[in-house]
Amino acid sequence: MIRVGLLGTGRIGSLHAETIASHRDSDLCAVSDIDTESANKLGLQYGAVVKPANEVISDPNIDAILIATSTDTHSDFIEQASSAGKAILCEKPVDLNLTRAKDCLNKVGKANKPIMIGFNRRFDPNFAQLKKSLDDNEIGKRELLTITSFDPAPPPISYVKSSGGLYRDMMIHDFDLSNFIMGDLPLSITAVGHSLIDPEIGAAGDIDTAVVTMVYSDGKITVIKNSRRAAYGYDQRIEILGSEGLLQAENIMENSVVKSTKAGIVSAKPKYFFLERYIDAYKAEWAAFVRSINEDKPVPVTLGDGVAALAMAEAATQSQIAGRSIQLEEVL
Amino acid sequence: MIRVGLLGTGRIGSLHAETIASHRDSDLCAVSDIDTESANKLGLQYGAVVKPANEVISDPNIDAILIATSTDTHSDFIEQASSAGKAILCEKPVDLNLTRAKDCLNKVGKANKPIMIGFNRRFDPNFAQLKKSLDDNEIGKRELLTITSFDPAPPPISYVKSSGGLYRDMMIHDFDLSNFIMGDLPLSITAVGHSLIDPEIGAAGDIDTAVVTMVYSDGKITVIKNSRRAAYGYDQRIEILGSEGLLQAENIMENSVVKSTKAGIVSAKPKYFFLERYIDAYKAEWAAFVRSINEDKPVPVTLGDGVAALAMAEAATQSQIAGRSIQLEEVL
Amino acid sequence: MIRVGLLGTGRIGSLHAETIASHRDSDLCAVSDIDTESANKLGLQYGAVVKPANEVISDPNIDAILIATSTDTHSDFIEQASSAGKAILCEKPVDLNLTRAKDCLNKVGKANKPIMIGFNRRFDPNFAQLKKSLDDNEIGKRELLTITSFDPAPPPISYVKSSGGLYRDMMIHDFDLSNFIMGDLPLSITAVGHSLIDPEIGAAGDIDTAVVTMVYSDGKITVIKNSRRAAYGYDQRIEILGSEGLLQAENIMENSVVKSTKAGIVSAKPKYFFLERYIDAYKAEWAAFVRSINEDKPVPVTLGDGVAALAMAEAATQSQIAGRSIQLEEVL
Amino acid sequence: MIRVGLLGTGRIGSLHAETIASHRDSDLCAVSDIDTESANKLGLQYGAVVKPANEVISDPNIDAILIATSTDTHSDFIEQASSAGKAILCEKPVDLNLTRAKDCLNKVGKANKPIMIGFNRRFDPNFAQLKKSLDDNEIGKRELLTITSFDPAPPPISYVKSSGGLYRDMMIHDFDLSNFIMGDLPLSITAVGHSLIDPEIGAAGDIDTAVVTMVYSDGKITVIKNSRRAAYGYDQRIEILGSEGLLQAENIMENSVVKSTKAGIVSAKPKYFFLERYIDAYKAEWAAFVRSINEDKPVPVTLGDGVAALAMAEAATQSQIAGRSIQLEEVL
Repeated sequence: MIRVGLLGTGRIGSLHAETIASHRDSDLCAVSDIDTESANKLGLQYGAVVKPANEVISDPNIDAILIATSTDTHSDFIEQASSAGKAILCEKPVDLNLTRAKDCLNKVGKANKPIMIGFNRRFDPNFAQLKKSLDDNEIGKRELLTITSFDPAPPPISYVKSSGGLYRDMMIHDFDLSNFIMGDLPLSITAVGHSLIDPEIGAAGDIDTAVVTMVYSDGKITVIKNSRRAAYGYDQRIEILGSEGLLQAENIMENSVVKSTKAGIVSAKPKYFFLERYIDAYKAEWAAFVRSINEDKPVPVTLGDGVAALAMAEAATQSQIAGRSIQLEEVL
Repeated sequence: MIRVGLLGTGRIGSLHAETIASHRDSDLCAVSDIDTESANKLGLQYGAVVKPANEVISDPNIDAILIATSTDTHSDFIEQASSAGKAILCEKPVDLNLTRAKDCLNKVGKANKPIMIGFNRRFDPNFAQLKKSLDDNEIGKRELLTITSFDPAPPPISYVKSSGGLYRDMMIHDFDLSNFIMGDLPLSITAVGHSLIDPEIGAAGDIDTAVVTMVYSDGKITVIKNSRRAAYGYDQRIEILGSEGLLQAENIMENSVVKSTKAGIVSAKPKYFFLERYIDAYKAEWAAFVRSINEDKPVPVTLGDGVAALAMAEAATQSQIAGRSIQLEEVL
Repeated sequence: MIRVGLLGTGRIGSLHAETIASHRDSDLCAVSDIDTESANKLGLQYGAVVKPANEVISDPNIDAILIATSTDTHSDFIEQASSAGKAILCEKPVDLNLTRAKDCLNKVGKANKPIMIGFNRRFDPNFAQLKKSLDDNEIGKRELLTITSFDPAPPPISYVKSSGGLYRDMMIHDFDLSNFIMGDLPLSITAVGHSLIDPEIGAAGDIDTAVVTMVYSDGKITVIKNSRRAAYGYDQRIEILGSEGLLQAENIMENSVVKSTKAGIVSAKPKYFFLERYIDAYKAEWAAFVRSINEDKPVPVTLGDGVAALAMAEAATQSQIAGRSIQLEEVL
Repeated sequence: MIRVGLLGTGRIGSLHAETIASHRDSDLCAVSDIDTESANKLGLQYGAVVKPANEVISDPNIDAILIATSTDTHSDFIEQASSAGKAILCEKPVDLNLTRAKDCLNKVGKANKPIMIGFNRRFDPNFAQLKKSLDDNEIGKRELLTITSFDPAPPPISYVKSSGGLYRDMMIHDFDLSNFIMGDLPLSITAVGHSLIDPEIGAAGDIDTAVVTMVYSDGKITVIKNSRRAAYGYDQRIEILGSEGLLQAENIMENSVVKSTKAGIVSAKPKYFFLERYIDAYKAEWAAFVRSINEDKPVPVTLGDGVAALAMAEAATQSQIAGRSIQLEEVL
């Protein structure tokens, strides 16, 4: 039984608490949050001790730390937990600052306990099936990947201001997903983006709609499309053209009911947002982390993967400003 | 070049006129209708002579007669045109009276010119593809066929009164289609039906909603579902379960546009009715008739097929009244 | 916390054990099975006491009994558990013998504790959404319901022999589903069925392919189609035509991946069978039962519903033999 | 009746011949081609005179000229036919050389007879319906347009060498389509592209896979994806995200048959290539040209539209080489 300490008891921390508690090989033993009310409530619900983060990390009875705190604390907690000999699952991104993230990677890179980054979409059963079909060579060589990722509604402007920008906060999921699907890092990255949805987002120096194209050493191409608002709900699709065909992972809907009336043929809307859409992915992610610990296997998403995705976000940010392609090695 | 005389210049006659005129191997030479205004208009449009039906039939310059007049004249015109040595394409049904239809079949059955019945749905490219897949053994042995056939709106009550009833007027298409798909005639027929849409239809002694099940000598089963009204438009589908899989011919839509909004995911409505849906089928039907003449091949839909479908309509009518299964041989 | 005793620890009993254990308001306290090995294994897994059925039923610490034993014991256990003052959830069917089932209903009909029958498909989120749309009058008056229900493969012949036949064992789900969707019992039932898949099934006096049509007092119609074998997997669909449109609950697939190659456009197969397809429905069923107990509300599926479905199976059986429609009141 | 002279009797010219001949307001009177055998054959088939291009153009009995010759002759024939007072429908592109095309536009820009460029995809009923939905404000403000356009197989290498490159030959259709859908010209264009399919294409200095992003003055974005090879057939889709929803025009398939077997759920492949897919669009294009002549209305696709699309192809070509965004005004 893996004894887990959870740092951060907000929305995503609560989701992880449920996942940890319902897995038969893990126990939620301790929780921590700077918002003590939130921490107390979650601790009570799962029968977990509530104490400060540093005490959770140093607790010799704790085997693994799940880091779901604010992004600016991730690198520090990774380093502390690694020093304390814990297995670590840390939410994305590693950091907003690429230099700090690389520094963290250098420090803990040789730890002999698993350190995994929470890019949950790799564990979506649909995306995983698409990846398997590619690896089984069902459509030949990879040529042109398109990732469509639209949120149902933009976050509060306060969130936007501290998010690090769309590329580091939102598209970072898609950068990692393209690395997962393509099995390769791009050579160069070109980005265009604008604030179309809410002028306040533009006033805060951020964008809400963006397209990134990435070119690889063998000439294959990835396109990522992001929007902070799709009126119909969460839209998460992957499409890849190969030398012998096309694979598409279509969006996931609330139900299978189709209504035909004078007004047309109407089917259900998408599952609303990531909590509904990716619930199975979060469970599979936790199960993979538990397996890595129990079977002493490499984690499926490394800290290095987290740094690579952040570097791509950095390159996209620079490309959008410069109006030219940025080589990934310029930022790495 | 096949020189064609058209009897009947109403809605379906006009459609055939266009089909005849646009085929490179046929010419529309003469038209006839008891409504002389309608006949004159169509004659003018296609440069065809207008004259009484018996003169069209006896015209030695005419090679083929297309009969699109009212049902009660079909048998007589078939017999006259056959006597005159013409090739014949006659609209369904052969007759409303099964005895009269069998009589007609006996009289002209040995004619050496093609006599074909206009069951156009056999020529729908989707249904034809489904049939081909079956014949190519793609889903193994036939087990359970379902035909869904809903009209967008009921016909005028005056039409209903002279139609011979839903089974002889509307479901007769589906009886023929099941004979085509199954490649076999059923042993027994069971029908339930009611007037749900318009009380006037019930008052006229007819029904507007019906389900027929048919059992074959080897145990396989057909279900036919008819409704005179589908608020969303024409609905024409076939589905067959075989020992190794399922084949479905889905309904045909107006366009491929999908709209996703707060209200749901909306796609286009079906093509409205048979003129829109089956335009390609009518063309293919005419082309098959022309081929039978030019290449001296058997017609793909015989007068016997027309009599069989009528017998099934008769059996369904009797079954609905009797509340029991009717053996097809009871009526044949 | 509701303390639950489980009778029957086979495949479906094991599924219920997991559902009971993972609900936050219920505890699996005792289990029983004539196969003591199976009972011991499940008891160990969930920390539940293992003892004979009559001791589980009489245990004053047990609040609710879930009956998942063989069908021939259902009526007895319902009566005993009701006498002992327990809330009851019993798997379908109530009994294979309609007289015995009606007798049981008479005996326990006035119990003041909830007695619920496990027709899990009412709790499928897709079917529940379709029902809600109907009740919200989104397609007007109900006219023509079609239920398609195909299993992936026939059960062992030993199971077939003691199953009571396709109508009582398999189609009984669809009879209840039509009662749920239509909100009404039919007047008359007509059935055709044959053994097409496996001659051994026919030799055992059963069928494997069947179509039932049912007519209601206001003329609306239900069609149910059953096959014991769909080579592509479990096929569970509902389609209902109303005066203002059509509602369809489409089949549920394993994933959303579509592959386009020279061979065609290929999408995922259905979820394989009821354990995969209806896992959410079983959870929702148990949650509904718990709510009925905790909030003292009527159960959503009554013992009377179980008897009605059984009567419809009886009528279908008689209709198939007699070759005529059977009035439901002839058997009730 | 509009009397038409056709220049060019190759594949696309033959298609136009059929379209001209089957329209009730136009007659194919004269044809011309440097390949006299091809010209004679088509002339015979449609009863049209065969003579040299300059004689067709100067023939006082000819009202309209359809130019379907090789691209390098387009500008000259446009200028000559315009001088001769003819209405003109010219295949895309106007020219491979932007300066020459602009020169042509300057020379004939004030002609009082219709001059239309054959961007047939504007007339596809699905794309036209999507455009109508946008114009009817069904999804609010335009934000992010994606055009997917994959050919089934690359053209012969000889064609590639004289084609002007993928941007001018293939993507020019999509540039025009984005102008049509967006109702606006972009400010800047960024292109990446590679030869992934056939090294000979790369050796000829061309690419076979490309992605272009375009940004407009109000910040909205277009993405165009092109590949010369989709193993499953022609793939032509449009998708646009607006402030209130998403519109998608899905690809067009050969038929509506779906086959479910152990191997999965298989539906039909796309219509193979442009002749099959866009046959209705070519007819609608010709009908629109005839209407412009008969009703003295502006043509729906002007020579200026042709020059704009060519300028975008020029900018994309430069962007791909330079690795930076090109402003459209840099090339216009």
